[in-house]
Amino acid sequence: MRERRDPDRLAQAGQLAMLLEVSASPKPGNVDRCHDYPDTRYEDFLASSVAVYPVLMRAASSRARIGRLIFEAVSASKTWHKGGNTHFGAFTLLIPLIIGGGEQKAAHDAVKSTGWEDAIEFYRAAQIAGVRVKPVDNLDLTDPESFDRIKRERLSLYEIFSISASYDLISNEWVNGFPRSFRYAEVLRDDVRELGLNDGIVMTFLRILSESPDTFVAMKFGADVAREVSERARVLTRHFDLDKIKSFDEELIERRINPGSSADIIIASLFIALVRGWI
Amino acid sequence: MRERRDPDRLAQAGQLAMLLEVSASPKPGNVDRCHDYPDTRYEDFLASSVAVYPVLMRAASSRARIGRLIFEAVSASKTWHKGGNTHFGAFTLLIPLIIGGGEQKAAHDAVKSTGWEDAIEFYRAAQIAGVRVKPVDNLDLTDPESFDRIKRERLSLYEIFSISASYDLISNEWVNGFPRSFRYAEVLRDDVRELGLNDGIVMTFLRILSESPDTFVAMKFGADVAREVSERARVLTRHFDLDKIKSFDEELIERRINPGSSADIIIASLFIALVRGWI
Repeated sequence: MRERRDPDRLAQAGQLAMLLEVSASPKPGNVDRCHDYPDTRYEDFLASSVAVYPVLMRAASSRARIGRLIFEAVSASKTWHKGGNTHFGAFTLLIPLIIGGGEQKAAHDAVKSTGWEDAIEFYRAAQIAGVRVKPVDNLDLTDPESFDRIKRERLSLYEIFSISASYDLISNEWVNGFPRSFRYAEVLRDDVRELGLNDGIVMTFLRILSESPDTFVAMKFGADVAREVSERARVLTRHFDLDKIKSFDEELIERRINPGSSADIIIASLFIALVRGWI
Repeated sequence: MRERRDPDRLAQAGQLAMLLEVSASPKPGNVDRCHDYPDTRYEDFLASSVAVYPVLMRAASSRARIGRLIFEAVSASKTWHKGGNTHFGAFTLLIPLIIGGGEQKAAHDAVKSTGWEDAIEFYRAAQIAGVRVKPVDNLDLTDPESFDRIKRERLSLYEIFSISASYDLISNEWVNGFPRSFRYAEVLRDDVRELGLNDGIVMTFLRILSESPDTFVAMKFGADVAREVSERARVLTRHFDLDKIKSFDEELIERRINPGSSADIIIASLFIALVRGWI
């Protein structure tokens, strides 16, 4: 337990999780070491992972509020690269997990203790990250009145996420105590043991994608496309077939369907597996 | 100047230099994002880059001797991956460059001030890294008597490198004040401006390889092979031809010729270019 609270160790596990995720290839639809998107390159993800380290250290030392840390993480990330959004969802999961020292209950306690200030910082972070966030309970982050209302009604980030949890994978993790992050950390351990590091990560990614429609895809293309992508992924989880995964990858890239929320979940799972020494 | 001495900024430039180097592809003969060696994978280089961050921070804060920091860097790197040697030469260049805040004269002053303790720590680091070091002035690191002699005669690491500087690229950088590291930082700036980040790094790598036979290749295969590889690289620097670079890469990989010293130099140059905001 003591070793897990070593701030460097926690921050390094978070950083390596980000690097292993973006490197694992072919990871259908997403940026990986073998292909970029025109506006966001592989190197933007490397730079973002490097830039955020001091913020992860601060999280590990519990030196600031969750909302503030998410804002700082996005700011640091944006000053080091010019690509689009790289790690917004990942930071939203990683920071409470790091604050909790990689322990499930502690991470859940951390998000439950957020206040309205965290909500304000989170929405400001989403703005600078350039992330589209679906309005929650009429809270639209493009409307300044929303910020006033958060403050007036003292809406905590946890309360806001409780509303979006029904359709948003990241909010759902917060509200239900990170069930997927921890479950897939175990799946990852087994897949990596069986298939090796790169292919194991790809396989677990496909399982995550197959078991829940990706929020990011649903936001961009609608629920039907998100469901179709998940069903297609499900077929590929039966056994590891590199050629079939490559074709699926090429098709998604061509359609510009990038399952970003599933990538965020696997970063959280990689972090947990690294902290536990499973991979 | 003040900003350059920010320890986080210096450590991050060092880390990103390592990540950009290993990712640039195709980088003839070396591990890159698109191919591994059987005993050392791309992910080993990622893990090593993550592991060394706290040591780079210590270097940036000038908290320990150069030899000690090189030893700590190698130790940290080895505890995070099971691959072979990843960054021994790179650490030997990066640590004095970081101590010098990215300034050429300060880095040269730092290496000139090394003592016999640095030499002992350096040889211990080489041992745990599993690096073959050619005996210098009969100092063979596999012979315990060499350690006694270093201590007895108070041979500084700088003095030992003065002897190996004639045939070893890394020692040569130390003794002559990092001429290649700084010169190729400018070349890199221009190549990246012309060809983009990945291809610019590949091009500068080829120029480094073409202009001096690679020490690592010379150690493993002899001077003739090292010269042949450099001459072949020279032809490829005339203009950027991806297919020809790929064929050269495949050939070197097949012959297991990995120009590791040229990779170390480009990490140093990337660090300098990043600190100066050139890339």
